[in-house]
Amino acid sequence: MGGAIARNLVAAGHRVSVYNRTPARAEALVQAGARLALTPAEAGRNPVAITMLADDAAVEAIVMGEDGMAAGLAAGGIHVSMSTISVALADRLDSYHRERDQIFVAAPVFGRPEAAAARKLFVTAAGNDAAIAALRPVFDAIGQRLFVIGGRPSQACLVKLAGNFLITCVIESLAEIFALTRKGGVASEIVFDLLTETLFSAPVYKIYGKILLEERFEEVGFALPLGLKDNRLVQQAAEALSVPLPFAAIVRDRFLASIAKGDGDLDWSAFARRATEDAGLDIGPAENGTRSPS
Amino acid sequence: MGGAIARNLVAAGHRVSVYNRTPARAEALVQAGARLALTPAEAGRNPVAITMLADDAAVEAIVMGEDGMAAGLAAGGIHVSMSTISVALADRLDSYHRERDQIFVAAPVFGRPEAAAARKLFVTAAGNDAAIAALRPVFDAIGQRLFVIGGRPSQACLVKLAGNFLITCVIESLAEIFALTRKGGVASEIVFDLLTETLFSAPVYKIYGKILLEERFEEVGFALPLGLKDNRLVQQAAEALSVPLPFAAIVRDRFLASIAKGDGDLDWSAFARRATEDAGLDIGPAENGTRSPS
Amino acid sequence: MGGAIARNLVAAGHRVSVYNRTPARAEALVQAGARLALTPAEAGRNPVAITMLADDAAVEAIVMGEDGMAAGLAAGGIHVSMSTISVALADRLDSYHRERDQIFVAAPVFGRPEAAAARKLFVTAAGNDAAIAALRPVFDAIGQRLFVIGGRPSQACLVKLAGNFLITCVIESLAEIFALTRKGGVASEIVFDLLTETLFSAPVYKIYGKILLEERFEEVGFALPLGLKDNRLVQQAAEALSVPLPFAAIVRDRFLASIAKGDGDLDWSAFARRATEDAGLDIGPAENGTRSPS
Amino acid sequence: MGGAIARNLVAAGHRVSVYNRTPARAEALVQAGARLALTPAEAGRNPVAITMLADDAAVEAIVMGEDGMAAGLAAGGIHVSMSTISVALADRLDSYHRERDQIFVAAPVFGRPEAAAARKLFVTAAGNDAAIAALRPVFDAIGQRLFVIGGRPSQACLVKLAGNFLITCVIESLAEIFALTRKGGVASEIVFDLLTETLFSAPVYKIYGKILLEERFEEVGFALPLGLKDNRLVQQAAEALSVPLPFAAIVRDRFLASIAKGDGDLDWSAFARRATEDAGLDIGPAENGTRSPS
Repeated sequence: MGGAIARNLVAAGHRVSVYNRTPARAEALVQAGARLALTPAEAGRNPVAITMLADDAAVEAIVMGEDGMAAGLAAGGIHVSMSTISVALADRLDSYHRERDQIFVAAPVFGRPEAAAARKLFVTAAGNDAAIAALRPVFDAIGQRLFVIGGRPSQACLVKLAGNFLITCVIESLAEIFALTRKGGVASEIVFDLLTETLFSAPVYKIYGKILLEERFEEVGFALPLGLKDNRLVQQAAEALSVPLPFAAIVRDRFLASIAKGDGDLDWSAFARRATEDAGLDIGPAENGTRSPS
Repeated sequence: MGGAIARNLVAAGHRVSVYNRTPARAEALVQAGARLALTPAEAGRNPVAITMLADDAAVEAIVMGEDGMAAGLAAGGIHVSMSTISVALADRLDSYHRERDQIFVAAPVFGRPEAAAARKLFVTAAGNDAAIAALRPVFDAIGQRLFVIGGRPSQACLVKLAGNFLITCVIESLAEIFALTRKGGVASEIVFDLLTETLFSAPVYKIYGKILLEERFEEVGFALPLGLKDNRLVQQAAEALSVPLPFAAIVRDRFLASIAKGDGDLDWSAFARRATEDAGLDIGPAENGTRSPS
Repeated sequence: MGGAIARNLVAAGHRVSVYNRTPARAEALVQAGARLALTPAEAGRNPVAITMLADDAAVEAIVMGEDGMAAGLAAGGIHVSMSTISVALADRLDSYHRERDQIFVAAPVFGRPEAAAARKLFVTAAGNDAAIAALRPVFDAIGQRLFVIGGRPSQACLVKLAGNFLITCVIESLAEIFALTRKGGVASEIVFDLLTETLFSAPVYKIYGKILLEERFEEVGFALPLGLKDNRLVQQAAEALSVPLPFAAIVRDRFLASIAKGDGDLDWSAFARRATEDAGLDIGPAENGTRSPS
Repeated sequence: MGGAIARNLVAAGHRVSVYNRTPARAEALVQAGARLALTPAEAGRNPVAITMLADDAAVEAIVMGEDGMAAGLAAGGIHVSMSTISVALADRLDSYHRERDQIFVAAPVFGRPEAAAARKLFVTAAGNDAAIAALRPVFDAIGQRLFVIGGRPSQACLVKLAGNFLITCVIESLAEIFALTRKGGVASEIVFDLLTETLFSAPVYKIYGKILLEERFEEVGFALPLGLKDNRLVQQAAEALSVPLPFAAIVRDRFLASIAKGDGDLDWSAFARRATEDAGLDIGPAENGTRSPS
């Protein structure tokens, strides 16, 4: 993901330094015209520093660690966090950068890796207005559209987590009705066509409906444990705001049962197999594969 | 709904007899060119007899009752049930008509009343292939598209109930994320735009998202108790097929709490108020209105 | 169950007529001193007529059918329904008997078959006060204690269904914590001892905790499909009263998944296997037995 | 809680040093014969050091902080954690003390403050066998019974969290059936008597059933936010072990809605008000009191 974004920035003519804990992974980008930064601090010595990392811990380590990115970033510099991090960490980063006269913008993106490569990401940004305006050329280089969410950076994280949660609701609800209609003798393809050509004609139903239909769970666009992580983050945010989310609770249990049953290395949409299985239907070969239960 | 469909049939040049338990309600149709049938049996004396009624009990009474529609229908005649009835009743009607050498086709429709008036319904038909083929001109006169579901009439009912259930999943999931993001200080309009212009760009999100945003629950497109009824029917079908539907259970409780709290005369989407309320948010004036709890 | 009750009535010196659709089943009772009734109406020709039947349909057929029990019962006679029937049927029976100047008392019992044999049932009665008082010697002959629930017979059915529902909550909650602690390496016996010797020292935890510990699901005290039926009845009553029951919804899905996975001929407590299985734990040999999924 | 335990230790003739961040709170104990420790390290200079603190953060600060308890504890000394801490922290404390050649025993207790004062606590201990044996006189001085859970200290925390979770299942299930039967016109006192004198005759039903009946939520035995915290801890433990807990998810949402609606300063059992409220029943004056929603 980070690689595709950086490549698009280079292609758009931006001057890009790139840091990766495994420098070999940055090689292709360097070939493409990026400069290699040897430390996060070095990568931070730019007007804008973007992070796209696996989880909260990685962001903390890279930004706030010794010789971290914030140490390199000048006063007035902007740190843009593009990965899905927790609302709490976004709030902490905001304070952290403020104390250093730096600016923090959260700009998580929607889209699977193919979309990133094709500059088709949707960017959701929150934070300082002027900073977001200044970042326009950056966002234009990597995505098809920018949505400005609000003035507090963590709001973009909240919306991103809400969006990912909404995707899981689509997956679970499709899994339930496919199980129901399949047991009633209706071909799932017919149900899929009916839905996606009428009221439910959105990419989310087409993409995930197709994956469910074809049981294409071995092709990992987003790993199942990361799906669980995002579910945990949305529930943590919901707890901090005192908002019950009953659908999120159902999905959480689906993720946990999936990991317990050895589906942890499949695509996150594979939690759909639980609804299938609970209906007494065959869930296909993946479960009986080489995966061993955790 | 039935009125709009009959009007479109008349307009398309079909010869239409119309029966309504309250004859005055048929008057406009008679003005438009339909013939008034004084009993269900009389309405049945046609090659094709269509029912569009409130619930299972009404269908049973009209079709199988004394002087009922089936008594008028000739051998080889087709009964088309267009309202949302239970899978079990559809199976019983199929047997009932078979015993009389009649043909039963279930053809429930998707679409709110405006769509019916505009010939924009989606028709989902199941039953005898030749009968469905023969009904083409009828379906063309009332809807924009026909989906053939399968050979057993009740399969169309199952799919219709599954579709309605999927709509309630959209409503609940939207209600949850609107509550979450609203408590996080994000304007729901922004969340709505982001969703409906990206991954979730389907009519179902646009229509219901808008209703939720504008709290337009007093405008009853489909009454809340009918929503509960359809939830009950999908769960009955699921029980008969041994299929757990955890999302349907959540929605059921939302409907029950809505009726318990006096929201029973609002639009079915008003169960979304429960997620809002559970988050400690103000649910607007409707609740404090004149409605008294059941 | 009915047999054990009748035997205790005979033993207590009551004059007992007995009707069973399969007369051979009544033989042992006749040996013990009961008189054989050849029709329900004949069984009804007594001051008090007791029904203990499998489900609503059986009660309807025996009581209200042609030559049914109510046809034999004199004005002023009392019909006591001791099986677990629906609230709606109890209300209908109440009207039905009233129209015939008969009295209806619902008196469902708590206790497994062993308790019935040992006169250790708990009787919960609702209906006309004087009738319940008159029935005292009957209740004393079959149970250890009478609880008077209220003046409307169906209230006893509601409480009975609520009680059965509460038992399922105990089973599910025990199944969840056994799965959790077992995966944490704690022997379930230790957890069982701790609970049942402290805050949770009630028969319900001892009885069902033991069954879960020993996976004694093949020994059917109460068949799983009857458990699902009672869950359906409590949810129907809850729907009529507009009361959401989230725990009942969870249990319902457990029952459905159990039937879907071929556990339908086990004891009702076997739905506990679902929590075990969802945790990725081995659920023992029963599942891999000869049962085929429905 | 800590005070009552310390008092019982003094009364049993043990030599007790006591540390409290607010020294004035230790005064009564000093009067009773305890010695005042001015730092956690000083309190640690004993063969056995007991912690009974509000949450994980407090335990971390007191034990592992600068001049913390572990710094005072000699090699071979035993740290006994009696409050409800997370499984993860117990595992970390175990390693931490091991590295210092110290011994860590987790020994959380079951019982409300009255039980602590009356030496009626139930102690659940896990860890090194010899250490638990050596601690016998300590446990005897404060509780009525010891349950040894296993060899890994965190196992006692897991069981304690499971036990607290089981209590919440009792509260929720009682709340649901009280709502149901109350709407059916049955006095809750009758339901309470029936349950607690038959299958459900355990302290947990008597204690919480009584609180629910009398709506005695203002009397805070255990604060609602602490109940939510324990729910979070049990779910974290469940996530680490990949165990879905659907009942815990329902309870979590009850806690969140309770805080959202301004019930956060009531007893933890007050989440029962949500089932009452969702049934459209009046939940009494507490909600309309002076509490303001969070």
